[in-house]
Amino acid sequence: MNIQGDMIIGRQAVHGSAGTVRAFNPATRAELEPAFGAATMDDLAGACLLAEAAFDPYRNAPLERRARFLETIADRIMDIGPLLIERASAESGLPAARLEGERARTCNQLRLFAKVVRDGHFLAATLDSALPQRTPPRPDLRMGKIGLGPVAVFGASNFPLAFSVAGGDTASALAAGCPVVVKAHNAHLGTSELVAKAVRQAAEECGMPEGTFSMLIGTGFEIGQALVSHPAIKAVGFTGSRAGGLALVTAAQARKEPIPVYAEMSSINPFFLLPGALAACGATLAQGFVDSLTMGVGQFCTNPGLVIGLAGAELDVFRTAATEALAAKGAGTMLTAGIHQTYVDAVARRSGLAGVELVAQGGAEGCGCAAQAALYQTDAATFLANSALEEEIFGPTSLIIACANENELLEVARHIEGQLTATIHATAADRDLAGRLMPTLERKAGRILFNGFPTGVEVCHAMVHGGPFPATSDSRTTSVGATAIERFLRPVCYQDVPAELLPEALRDENPLGLARMVDGTLQ
Amino acid sequence: MNIQGDMIIGRQAVHGSAGTVRAFNPATRAELEPAFGAATMDDLAGACLLAEAAFDPYRNAPLERRARFLETIADRIMDIGPLLIERASAESGLPAARLEGERARTCNQLRLFAKVVRDGHFLAATLDSALPQRTPPRPDLRMGKIGLGPVAVFGASNFPLAFSVAGGDTASALAAGCPVVVKAHNAHLGTSELVAKAVRQAAEECGMPEGTFSMLIGTGFEIGQALVSHPAIKAVGFTGSRAGGLALVTAAQARKEPIPVYAEMSSINPFFLLPGALAACGATLAQGFVDSLTMGVGQFCTNPGLVIGLAGAELDVFRTAATEALAAKGAGTMLTAGIHQTYVDAVARRSGLAGVELVAQGGAEGCGCAAQAALYQTDAATFLANSALEEEIFGPTSLIIACANENELLEVARHIEGQLTATIHATAADRDLAGRLMPTLERKAGRILFNGFPTGVEVCHAMVHGGPFPATSDSRTTSVGATAIERFLRPVCYQDVPAELLPEALRDENPLGLARMVDGTLQ
Repeated sequence: MNIQGDMIIGRQAVHGSAGTVRAFNPATRAELEPAFGAATMDDLAGACLLAEAAFDPYRNAPLERRARFLETIADRIMDIGPLLIERASAESGLPAARLEGERARTCNQLRLFAKVVRDGHFLAATLDSALPQRTPPRPDLRMGKIGLGPVAVFGASNFPLAFSVAGGDTASALAAGCPVVVKAHNAHLGTSELVAKAVRQAAEECGMPEGTFSMLIGTGFEIGQALVSHPAIKAVGFTGSRAGGLALVTAAQARKEPIPVYAEMSSINPFFLLPGALAACGATLAQGFVDSLTMGVGQFCTNPGLVIGLAGAELDVFRTAATEALAAKGAGTMLTAGIHQTYVDAVARRSGLAGVELVAQGGAEGCGCAAQAALYQTDAATFLANSALEEEIFGPTSLIIACANENELLEVARHIEGQLTATIHATAADRDLAGRLMPTLERKAGRILFNGFPTGVEVCHAMVHGGPFPATSDSRTTSVGATAIERFLRPVCYQDVPAELLPEALRDENPLGLARMVDGTLQ
Repeated sequence: MNIQGDMIIGRQAVHGSAGTVRAFNPATRAELEPAFGAATMDDLAGACLLAEAAFDPYRNAPLERRARFLETIADRIMDIGPLLIERASAESGLPAARLEGERARTCNQLRLFAKVVRDGHFLAATLDSALPQRTPPRPDLRMGKIGLGPVAVFGASNFPLAFSVAGGDTASALAAGCPVVVKAHNAHLGTSELVAKAVRQAAEECGMPEGTFSMLIGTGFEIGQALVSHPAIKAVGFTGSRAGGLALVTAAQARKEPIPVYAEMSSINPFFLLPGALAACGATLAQGFVDSLTMGVGQFCTNPGLVIGLAGAELDVFRTAATEALAAKGAGTMLTAGIHQTYVDAVARRSGLAGVELVAQGGAEGCGCAAQAALYQTDAATFLANSALEEEIFGPTSLIIACANENELLEVARHIEGQLTATIHATAADRDLAGRLMPTLERKAGRILFNGFPTGVEVCHAMVHGGPFPATSDSRTTSVGATAIERFLRPVCYQDVPAELLPEALRDENPLGLARMVDGTLQ
């Protein structure tokens, strides 16, 4: 397989004619071959109309075939071999070992959703029996879930495999029975083409309708806006910046028929160091914190961007150890020139803020788009008075808030916006304060961790990678884990519908062997 | 108990000082005593801040107490006795028998949610075990759902009990662990006060935190907009007009922290008469259809406003029988003077449309805000070309579309907007056409009925009273039935959280005895 600069529209590889765009190597600052052709509005309409036509046959194909399709995508991604890792590394600056891990995660995610499809719990099959003798008689009522319709997925820059063309949004939308039209991220176009062709091959092998999957390329914002605005599209999955996510929400709300947007946007992931934990292991904690902060050059959505502790000798020990640990971290290559420049500018602004002190830095040397880590400190009053300190800086930087007392610490917790994660480091001695923090953090975050580090998002049934605004545009959902499928489903009730016209999941004989809610009891 | 013109703010009955507003008897066109005092912005802030303060203690109280609270509300509503029915009838023009049925439904709904709370399935308890030996080790991950926070509920005019102060939105929000602030509907202020005082009494008896429930009164749109915009409010439930619903969606999206709005708005409930059914029982069907159309003076959200059949002798038989049945229906009193005037104007506009014929009318005689039923007919081409024919007319009017052939009938189905319901009348001879209709109707409607009438919404586990836009602002949900609780919940993941800080539902020993998803298997 080689990279040809193509989109995938249904079964066709198409070289777009609306201008060209190239990928870029952030380590060398060199553009990469080949040139990719961008989609015309006709290309976009073609992909969307194919997706619309594919929706009924795709969602009504047997679940076992849908599950096999997801597994076959994983197999075909693995079949690409080293080329995928090499290209993704060149396009993202991420090391091969990290990308191999991300590829494994991407495939495991597809396989998890195959299991979710086979289990069928997502169908929420619910039956209420007819009561013909009642006054008035109750009809036969059955409820199941179906896909919303074709889904637009926007690839994310920071996970060129796991949150991109065949990442979590695509896997969960396909699992829900929804065709997918991906807008490829321009930071990893070659990676996107390789993966899109793997998906296309899997769709062919599994006999999926043409239009079940397409991938478009665009040079500017227009193609993404047009995709979200197309009447065939019924939901949107996005991971990226707050501004980017909100622009898609606005476009989706402006449609004649508004549609849901699942945008995972902005989180600074507060990291609470309670006094007992600081006293017991402040220096060890500092090393773990710095490792988490600089992992992937700080480009994880769950990066710990805010450290909250009580001012005093123990917090000083933590800061000193963090300073040493950070100094040992070299500058890492960021994903794109744009991300790098935004980081450099944001750190410069923060360095100039009154009441905010730069307390530690990482190594400065590095080629290309290399970023120097930075750790700041402030007090609670300064933080509470300056909303700029709450803005996410995407990259390896964090801010310590030294609180004068427990009330200030709790006040900071109540003040912050919605988050993907909140972490508490605590020992048994901290249980009272931890107990007072918990109700606030439950209201602020999608995931609460004890004595751990927020980077690293397990793909499993209990994961929530979500949280109140602005962490996401829809706090009721997760974009990682089995229940991510729920984002793309809606319930339909069937009243007195003849058996042969009912979905299999709702028939008397329960041919799929599902756990179902029958007359209010789970069976 | 007597009616004093009060709001309820937490534990207090408050006579608002921002102007007065009176209820109105639509049968006599007389204003009703007493004058109600409208809320100041301070009253509104007081109710919202009490709700905010009540959220943590309310959601963390034992589920059994929450269930008892819902049941006690039902008991206290029954305790009001005949005064509630008399006042609701005077305020709405609805007959006592209908309101007694609606009261029973309202109480059954509260009791259903008590059962839902006790069952605990809504918590979606999910556990993934730690895998300490794995590389990297997997932490202990547990997921459960919590309430979104205080919910604003807007009472609906057409169900002064079941969709109002203690109706489905309030019951499901309270069941989810969310405090509720109701904006009373001005069409039934006395009914609202009586029910609000019953809720307050139940909250006191059950020891619920002050602020678990409040009810505000307002003279104009400002109080509703301010309520949706208040930072303490985290979700909105609404049943009413498309314009009203969309105004709340816009206000909710304009907030610093946007929040979900569940607005049930506009549906014309297509009613397909397939050829076999028309031939077998066209005249009988016509009587049932007219009964459904005129039930509650056509003021049900699921009123059949569109009849689609194939032109020909059988459809003529149906129309002739419907004409006779309609002529026998007297004019009924509509809920408010505003609704009546809007109906009169809309029917007059429809009567003047080219290609649309008035084929039948109900009786014209009636006092007060009495509405004359009207049945129109057009052809598919006229319908498809004129979007005004798709607009909901709230009241006892419907439009027959006589299609030239099956393709036109299917084209009409594909053309219509999202609906609460879609009905198919079919015999075995119609199975092919019904099978071709089904995938389209699944995409258009929340509930699909065979050989029945859409009015009458069963409160049970399998009900979906929802549907794609503009039927609702959120097609992923239902506002009636057990799963309405899901609208007010969001998932939280607990990673390595100490047992004593975990919600009960997620503890190892499963103290609530829930069905839980453990390591991917339902147990």
